[in-house]
Amino acid sequence: MMNDTMIRNTPIDKEVVNSVVKASGIKDVSISTIREIVKMVNEIEIITGEKFIRMEMGVPGIAPPQIGVEAEIAALRRGVASIYPMIDGVIDLKNEFSRFLKLFINIDVSPEHCVPTVGAMQGSFASFMLISKFIKKQNTTLFIDPGFPVQKQQHHALGIHYESFDIYDFRGDKLKDKIESYLVKGNISSIIYSNPNNPSWICFTEKELKIIGELAVKYNVIVIEDLAYIAMDFRQDFSKPGQPPYQPSVSKYMNNYILLISSSKAFSYAGQRIGMMAISNTLFYKESIDLFEYFRTNKFGYAMIYRVLYSLSSGTSHSAQYAFAAMLKAANEGKFDFVKEVKEYGKRAKIMKKMFSENGFSIVYSKDDNVPIADGFYFTFSYHGFDSSKLMVELMYYGISAISLAITGSTHIEGLRACVSQISMEQMPILEERLKQFYSDHPIN
Amino acid sequence: MMNDTMIRNTPIDKEVVNSVVKASGIKDVSISTIREIVKMVNEIEIITGEKFIRMEMGVPGIAPPQIGVEAEIAALRRGVASIYPMIDGVIDLKNEFSRFLKLFINIDVSPEHCVPTVGAMQGSFASFMLISKFIKKQNTTLFIDPGFPVQKQQHHALGIHYESFDIYDFRGDKLKDKIESYLVKGNISSIIYSNPNNPSWICFTEKELKIIGELAVKYNVIVIEDLAYIAMDFRQDFSKPGQPPYQPSVSKYMNNYILLISSSKAFSYAGQRIGMMAISNTLFYKESIDLFEYFRTNKFGYAMIYRVLYSLSSGTSHSAQYAFAAMLKAANEGKFDFVKEVKEYGKRAKIMKKMFSENGFSIVYSKDDNVPIADGFYFTFSYHGFDSSKLMVELMYYGISAISLAITGSTHIEGLRACVSQISMEQMPILEERLKQFYSDHPIN
Repeated sequence: MMNDTMIRNTPIDKEVVNSVVKASGIKDVSISTIREIVKMVNEIEIITGEKFIRMEMGVPGIAPPQIGVEAEIAALRRGVASIYPMIDGVIDLKNEFSRFLKLFINIDVSPEHCVPTVGAMQGSFASFMLISKFIKKQNTTLFIDPGFPVQKQQHHALGIHYESFDIYDFRGDKLKDKIESYLVKGNISSIIYSNPNNPSWICFTEKELKIIGELAVKYNVIVIEDLAYIAMDFRQDFSKPGQPPYQPSVSKYMNNYILLISSSKAFSYAGQRIGMMAISNTLFYKESIDLFEYFRTNKFGYAMIYRVLYSLSSGTSHSAQYAFAAMLKAANEGKFDFVKEVKEYGKRAKIMKKMFSENGFSIVYSKDDNVPIADGFYFTFSYHGFDSSKLMVELMYYGISAISLAITGSTHIEGLRACVSQISMEQMPILEERLKQFYSDHPIN
Repeated sequence: MMNDTMIRNTPIDKEVVNSVVKASGIKDVSISTIREIVKMVNEIEIITGEKFIRMEMGVPGIAPPQIGVEAEIAALRRGVASIYPMIDGVIDLKNEFSRFLKLFINIDVSPEHCVPTVGAMQGSFASFMLISKFIKKQNTTLFIDPGFPVQKQQHHALGIHYESFDIYDFRGDKLKDKIESYLVKGNISSIIYSNPNNPSWICFTEKELKIIGELAVKYNVIVIEDLAYIAMDFRQDFSKPGQPPYQPSVSKYMNNYILLISSSKAFSYAGQRIGMMAISNTLFYKESIDLFEYFRTNKFGYAMIYRVLYSLSSGTSHSAQYAFAAMLKAANEGKFDFVKEVKEYGKRAKIMKKMFSENGFSIVYSKDDNVPIADGFYFTFSYHGFDSSKLMVELMYYGISAISLAITGSTHIEGLRACVSQISMEQMPILEERLKQFYSDHPIN
């Protein structure tokens, strides 16, 4: 093992890294938020004048589709900026999104049950807020982890209970007993997970989605499926509208769900804060007397739109709704291959995972029920003999930044998450050089 | 008094109105939401083919300023659509907004404490969410009513307590004892009101603002001042940057406040859902140990931005931030007279209030501490012998729609709120004709 006091020539001055980390006041970097890591790395870059290989942020690294930008500009020229958008969304967007669900997931959700949200972030917030009050005794969310840390922060802020487990040891058939051990208690209102998964990029198999769906039916639990990275499992080609294979989804196995679809990643449209929420036709019309106390109505769908989303922000940017509608329409008509645009991430991940593996690192979440995971937006890695705090700081000496799995609900707290989106092909040789030096400086016995 | 069964030739078929109201399932129209009234009137218009004088919606009726639209288009052309906005807002917007507060209210709030929100709607939601958890024993909001109904709906949805009173009988010096009777109990966290007031268009006098400010200081209470209609008290000219008179505000009398400023009305930019929140320099740095349980930090300002606003929507439309920044910059530099643009509403209100008064109607909230109220976006009215439910339905027979004060916390539940924004000058003769017929059909003894 390395000796911390040993003088070594690392790409970034260790003293600078140490002093910035110390000045942040954060005792353990593995539990700092993504934004806090971003802030530290910004400071180190400014002080040293050196550019990092920045893998900490899950942000798009691709230009926005011209078709969206032009539609948004056209809407602004029509004067939509002064007119409140309808809370339930502009008709074009609702129609095209419903069609998109049919053509890319092969499910039926009527346009009235498809509503825009200020990013999928608002979609999850609104879902938690409503579902936790829908049936009083079912007041607890079950996270299938690892997951997006902010969704837990939303629970803290709203004072909503949650339980969670790491999927790592419960893939395939083992998932059934594990989930049922929670549902059988009767307090679970909903199950949430992302698929493809942030941070691990595992994808649930059809078998696993069927298990989740059937158990949710059995215990009257709502499933919130976060499809922020829809169609981005590049092992299969989900890019052809109306043609199999389709994006795998729990919605094929049950009818009591909310799907959250972001424009941020698959459509590189993060800046405009536009996502879509699909409420299943069945769930939309469900009623519960318990809801009335908080929302003055018994009806799930009505409460979601006119009570929750209305009171959160009075709707979503008018012009951005036309942008998303135009991108969906072009995708539906086969004129815009949104999957091709983001396949770039898969190419980067393939190269980067190889570099990490060849230089002593291990991929933490590496398989989907015995099949190697896809190359995509994220991957996870660890290094023998390091916990994630130590690895984060040590990698900063080498000009590489990432976040810890400790904040994602993973039990593999030795692991880090890498996001490939900000790393250009030109930076790959620099990354390789730094990883090689790291490996040579930290030989594995 | 009229006889309901009497056949009269009204502009709108009474049977159609009655059947639509009945079909809505709403037992008492005076407590239906604005959106529900909108829906009913839409249906009646479609069935009858007749256009209503629509006064129920508080939406802008003016085209968006070109300066905002062009800046937004320029930002989209620069590619901001794919880039997450910083949660605390783009620098230009923060700087121009801080300057705007100095030039139009004559107060100092540093740019770091000015953050964009998805409309002032998100601003109030975020404020309630955070303030109610800031000091445990102060868990109740005090509304100075009448007020915007959705802010109470936000309380229901979040499960936050509130108390309220109608300002009507407590103008001027009487306000002090009334407010103090609530604050002395120790459970009030914050006082909220809008100024100019929605729905009544009363404006607090400097004396009243001083009373509110001094009591808030005495009892350590935060004031949330909703300035959705900033500078729209057209009795004074608030349009000259850096020159008195300035928009009256509680912020001149205390330093523990949040100001909410919407782009929707004063800047006719409702479609893009962009507002600004100013947290006073003092409040931003306040700390409370109670906050930690929900937000994992003790710091008010930090929690507002990185816990509350982040988890609500991950920021506000990137391009819209540049639009608002450009409008504020032009206003600050005296190149864009935003007040002149919206003075149109004052002209309409003057004409309409005269018509209502000449035809038997009374203005409910008519004075600011003995001075006649301004002509602006809203006014309130009633008719002898009618409660608001009856008046709403009866006016629908005459093709006129408005909402009841019953949902605004007013004790004057016989009154209705009229919004002038959707009524064009061309419609004024039609309105007058309908009011005359109403008056002649319902003579006041």
